[in-house]
Amino acid sequence: MRDFLPADKATRERALGIIRSSFAAHGFDEIETPVMEDTARLHSGLGGDNEKLGFAVLKRGLAPADLTAAAEADDLLSLADLGLRFDLTVPLARFYASHRADLPTVFRSIQIAPVWRAERPQKGRYRQFMQCDIDIIGEAGPLAEIELITATVAALDNLGLTGCSIRINDRRILSTMLATWGVDTALTERALITLDKLDKIGVDGVVTELAGLGVNTTGLADTLAGFADAGWPDQADAPAWLDQAAYADLTALRAALPGVTLVFDPTLVRGMGYYTGTIFEIAHPDLGYSLGGGGRYDGMIGRFLGSDVPACGFSIGFERIVDLLAGDDGTAENAVVLVHEKDADPAALVRLKTALVAGGLRVRLEKRTKNLKALLERAGAAGYGRFAVVADETVTADELVFKPLGD
Amino acid sequence: MRDFLPADKATRERALGIIRSSFAAHGFDEIETPVMEDTARLHSGLGGDNEKLGFAVLKRGLAPADLTAAAEADDLLSLADLGLRFDLTVPLARFYASHRADLPTVFRSIQIAPVWRAERPQKGRYRQFMQCDIDIIGEAGPLAEIELITATVAALDNLGLTGCSIRINDRRILSTMLATWGVDTALTERALITLDKLDKIGVDGVVTELAGLGVNTTGLADTLAGFADAGWPDQADAPAWLDQAAYADLTALRAALPGVTLVFDPTLVRGMGYYTGTIFEIAHPDLGYSLGGGGRYDGMIGRFLGSDVPACGFSIGFERIVDLLAGDDGTAENAVVLVHEKDADPAALVRLKTALVAGGLRVRLEKRTKNLKALLERAGAAGYGRFAVVADETVTADELVFKPLGD
Repeated sequence: MRDFLPADKATRERALGIIRSSFAAHGFDEIETPVMEDTARLHSGLGGDNEKLGFAVLKRGLAPADLTAAAEADDLLSLADLGLRFDLTVPLARFYASHRADLPTVFRSIQIAPVWRAERPQKGRYRQFMQCDIDIIGEAGPLAEIELITATVAALDNLGLTGCSIRINDRRILSTMLATWGVDTALTERALITLDKLDKIGVDGVVTELAGLGVNTTGLADTLAGFADAGWPDQADAPAWLDQAAYADLTALRAALPGVTLVFDPTLVRGMGYYTGTIFEIAHPDLGYSLGGGGRYDGMIGRFLGSDVPACGFSIGFERIVDLLAGDDGTAENAVVLVHEKDADPAALVRLKTALVAGGLRVRLEKRTKNLKALLERAGAAGYGRFAVVADETVTADELVFKPLGD
Repeated sequence: MRDFLPADKATRERALGIIRSSFAAHGFDEIETPVMEDTARLHSGLGGDNEKLGFAVLKRGLAPADLTAAAEADDLLSLADLGLRFDLTVPLARFYASHRADLPTVFRSIQIAPVWRAERPQKGRYRQFMQCDIDIIGEAGPLAEIELITATVAALDNLGLTGCSIRINDRRILSTMLATWGVDTALTERALITLDKLDKIGVDGVVTELAGLGVNTTGLADTLAGFADAGWPDQADAPAWLDQAAYADLTALRAALPGVTLVFDPTLVRGMGYYTGTIFEIAHPDLGYSLGGGGRYDGMIGRFLGSDVPACGFSIGFERIVDLLAGDDGTAENAVVLVHEKDADPAALVRLKTALVAGGLRVRLEKRTKNLKALLERAGAAGYGRFAVVADETVTADELVFKPLGD
């Protein structure tokens, strides 16, 4: 878990503001849920492997006897009634089940909020990190996918992130592919994990692992090698493993998103077991990892609600994206430092400062130090663009002479 | 803990944005700390009574033997290594101690973030709530108080909250007052708690309780009655209980803040034991409770850092303030609903929507329902101001006819 100093915090808040307003412009509505949910809900099996990484919160008012009982039952979680959320999807499903009557029939939600996972600390993995999710609940048709991808690409554009493409696939294509290869349905998850590693272990590695699962691998190496530049095969001329109905849906999405670089990737798996249809990821040419992803999860809301509701979502990997952004927002010109003497009258200084703020400036007071250069360099790094030395704090704001901090 | 639906979330985010930009304009820099801190730090005695209300997070990887040991030692907290912060002051002190070398000599921080307290749920008290704190670390003089009060009043003004005043006092005035009354220093805290209740239990109640603490109450009723409209007594003519040096500082603050309604209140106590000098609260004529407060706490940072650093802070009670704000931000005109037929082409709809978004509008798609009136009313409540019925989704954006949602 990390502290954010002013320069980083400013970059993060600016990026979050752009993402928030991009999503809102596309008709999504922001909601907020508490950071803690009941443990029973968090551990309902909808969170996949992430459930194991949840932080659990001790019940209040426990007595020693409660601990002894938990030890005897070997049931640690009985000591916890709440847990920190590990994603925003389980809380969204709970929120929708609680408030459905107050929400539009098709509900387009924005959630921009931190989640927590008790991962071993390593580079690029944090125990507290931000997620920016949009979801559409109640729309079974492709309008959901089109709106989600359009809004996400708009957010990336508005952040100034160019060159991103969207890799897309469908769970039904994966199912049909595995069935064609003769993979036993009990081994589907293991086969998908293998397929997901194609870019890491290569064609030979995948063939070997699939053979180990009892798959007849005759001709499989050629099929897998062909995935690398599959492009968008002609529907009429599609290979045997390609689910026709699902692929027709993907080509329709492609036609509906002419401004988006949509890349068909039959090896795209995405980890979460709850996906039921379309799945997609943000790819960037310079990066070996995805910048976000999502998909359709039609069965999940129903497990909270008791009646089926279609749902589809897209999540931006904020921590990865914010690292790619420039820190400068170009507003430094309006941020000024007033350097004053140590014994200047504080009332006069604040009067002067307030007059400048009223004129639209951001103003920081700084006592003059022996090393003025170091002081100004630090202010420049903090996003201030100009400074004035206040020789006499009774001057008016108009009389101050501002110089660029770079000089 | 509460869910926030779109209308409430929008009001909250708008208010947070105004507070954030008001503080930033006055030269404060926003930081962020993780929501969890080490338990040892949270329970270092700096959090006052709030420490008892902390949510504790279970250590990961505990075994039944750990529980048995904790039960035998009657030490529940040994099962927790982290806890949710209960205020933003303890994390700020830890942050400053960690990052002092990277911060300006006088550090003006903004923290806008949730805190958690395991209070019994009751009206107006929440277990998760937002705090908006500004603090100035490293400034011993009155410049800190003047800047904090100026920035806070600017934020309240920018929120449109009119009529607020700032009640002000100084811990040194309270100490001298109690000494004048002959209160034993060991009973200071209890006497302050009594004094704090003056508006609830009245002059007679306070006199009775102080008598119970062994105070000679001769003439005390008159003194207490005089507090009600003490105004700003003449320094030359000041009563015996009034600490001269501290009062001179307060009158200087008053002179330095001509635009602020500053009310001297010798009975203002504020609960936290760490205050050492000036203390202040935001009062509103229509409300019986404060909308925020703060003060000088010169000793606290030193307990983390090992060397003394002066500090002063002001916290806005966000949950109380947001309840006073109007939900409408006047931007509804730019938020439009496109009502479309159920079988409209989704690609054409999103193309139309995207063209409107590019023109600066916020756009929500809505499938036509039998009860169009109810649909439009709901959109109006969600902040949308106009609508158009899309009879043919292949029209251009310019051809759409928008009507006000109120009609």
